[in-house]
Amino acid sequence: MLEYGSSGMSVMEMSHRSKDFEAILDTAEADLRDLMGIPDNYKVLFLKGGGSTQFAMIPMNLMKNRVADYILTGQWSKKAAKEAELYGAVHVIASSADKTFSYVPDLSDLPVSADADYVYICQNNTIYGTTIKQLPNTKGKDLVSDISSMFLSGPLDVSRYGVVWGGAQKNVGPAGVTIVIIREDLIREDVLLFTPTMLRYKVHADARSLYNTPPCYGIYVCGLVFKWLKSIGGLTAIAARNEEKAAVLYDFLDGSDLFHGTVEKRDRSLMNVPFVTGSEELDKKFVSEASAAGFKNLKGHRTVGGMRASLYNAMPIDGVRALVAFMRDFEKNNG
Amino acid sequence: MLEYGSSGMSVMEMSHRSKDFEAILDTAEADLRDLMGIPDNYKVLFLKGGGSTQFAMIPMNLMKNRVADYILTGQWSKKAAKEAELYGAVHVIASSADKTFSYVPDLSDLPVSADADYVYICQNNTIYGTTIKQLPNTKGKDLVSDISSMFLSGPLDVSRYGVVWGGAQKNVGPAGVTIVIIREDLIREDVLLFTPTMLRYKVHADARSLYNTPPCYGIYVCGLVFKWLKSIGGLTAIAARNEEKAAVLYDFLDGSDLFHGTVEKRDRSLMNVPFVTGSEELDKKFVSEASAAGFKNLKGHRTVGGMRASLYNAMPIDGVRALVAFMRDFEKNNG
Repeated sequence: MLEYGSSGMSVMEMSHRSKDFEAILDTAEADLRDLMGIPDNYKVLFLKGGGSTQFAMIPMNLMKNRVADYILTGQWSKKAAKEAELYGAVHVIASSADKTFSYVPDLSDLPVSADADYVYICQNNTIYGTTIKQLPNTKGKDLVSDISSMFLSGPLDVSRYGVVWGGAQKNVGPAGVTIVIIREDLIREDVLLFTPTMLRYKVHADARSLYNTPPCYGIYVCGLVFKWLKSIGGLTAIAARNEEKAAVLYDFLDGSDLFHGTVEKRDRSLMNVPFVTGSEELDKKFVSEASAAGFKNLKGHRTVGGMRASLYNAMPIDGVRALVAFMRDFEKNNG
Repeated sequence: MLEYGSSGMSVMEMSHRSKDFEAILDTAEADLRDLMGIPDNYKVLFLKGGGSTQFAMIPMNLMKNRVADYILTGQWSKKAAKEAELYGAVHVIASSADKTFSYVPDLSDLPVSADADYVYICQNNTIYGTTIKQLPNTKGKDLVSDISSMFLSGPLDVSRYGVVWGGAQKNVGPAGVTIVIIREDLIREDVLLFTPTMLRYKVHADARSLYNTPPCYGIYVCGLVFKWLKSIGGLTAIAARNEEKAAVLYDFLDGSDLFHGTVEKRDRSLMNVPFVTGSEELDKKFVSEASAAGFKNLKGHRTVGGMRASLYNAMPIDGVRALVAFMRDFEKNNG
């Protein structure tokens, strides 16, 4: 933090045009390409502005015909679709809103629009705890996927997507970095006319993510996380850990009389596990006692209530075991 | 870095909706308001995307008549003006391009457009080393000022501006945070129709900079810098330090036979001091020997050449004295 190598300065102090920082950025990109097996015809962009900025960048850059198909499986795909409506016609071709997004609809034969510029999904739904495990049949259209809350949680076949992107703040690094992986032929010059320079993928691709000052320290930390993932065996290894962790909690939920998972079993996320007791009062008591015992941030998202345990890469299995032991005790005392 | 207070977690790990982070954000804003004496009818927004995103946000949010006046005193005001052309008519009402931006034009009686939505300046020109010391007579129009490279270098009368904004990465904190101070009546609902949600000041003002995940750690570090500035006596105290530092270097340049400042004396910046020897070869030799002696990043910006010493708040006066001693020796050996 205070001095990078023997540079005499912190990454926070160095010029983003210095050789040291360029090496940090190049190494981070190379390690990410290696980890994810990103094909050569995809660019990797380190951007700013978070997911909500991508919600605009995607239609502004990709809407050639001004038509796009969105699949709604939670709040983030809903927000993305709403933003896209500023720029063209948005067709919702599937949705699980009818059951509070507690499942993933069948995506095998959808009414994909003939002139759709892309099909959009949010692949892991942080708030509702579902994951799209079978990618939609897009009938030849490019698939755009928000993987913010499952980024680097396991292997991903990048070649199946046109654009795959995520905020860093879950598994990758500190908030403030957004990584976009985009197939080169989708990086177009003829974007919507009023697209700000900073919202053009081509500008960032041409400048190799150095069009303006990037969040240097955040990118540096992302690079350290890539190195760590490589050192433990890459995405296959982290997937095995994540599956083991999630199984500890789901197995307990499936056997519990007090606690219940809220999601269709086949669509369960490895990252986010929402659960309830069935009583708002008990939920509240649980969150409060858990927090006092050191289990922080278990309150469900403000839009849904109940509880949610997030099992991102950084959570050790012992943390999950400790949570389950605490839940078992709570059930004994309150069941 | 590893644990904030007794929260059990780093600021990098906490939810941006947690009470701890809200307190960090609230305290940072309160301290900045206190330091700068920001009037109550101005909002303070902590944003992402850097200055280049502001270049678009300003016209998208402020161009009611689709007309704006720009004063060109360097590369950053030129870039801002070019971006604004995407959204309306841009009138250049003053420029120092005729002498490579080495001075600030007389701004006392400008041909301000009758229907201009605002007058735009970049107040300190990092690359060329000038500062606009007498604000333009805007004839009643709102003044918008980019203060990125002079932010918190000394007192500023916020009430003279409609919008004053800057990237954090010079004096305020790590790259990745942009602070916008905007008078409330300029935060409009009826922005240009195609303005992305994330580029609307109103969205961020209504959400108190928490519309989406902010760069939490960067904001935390900015807050620490605000506390430090308050502890040394605020902006009057840092201005005195900065004047003293700059005088050490400018006095040497004025007496040197080898080195020359490149800027009109009355317009000299306290933050950025460009200088040359008059020989490209000697400039190169100087930069190389200086770097070997521990004086880093003295090469002038890639668009101008020569040398540039940046004397931001974090540079101690002993650093400037050491540089001058080194320059004196270099002059003896190469004069």
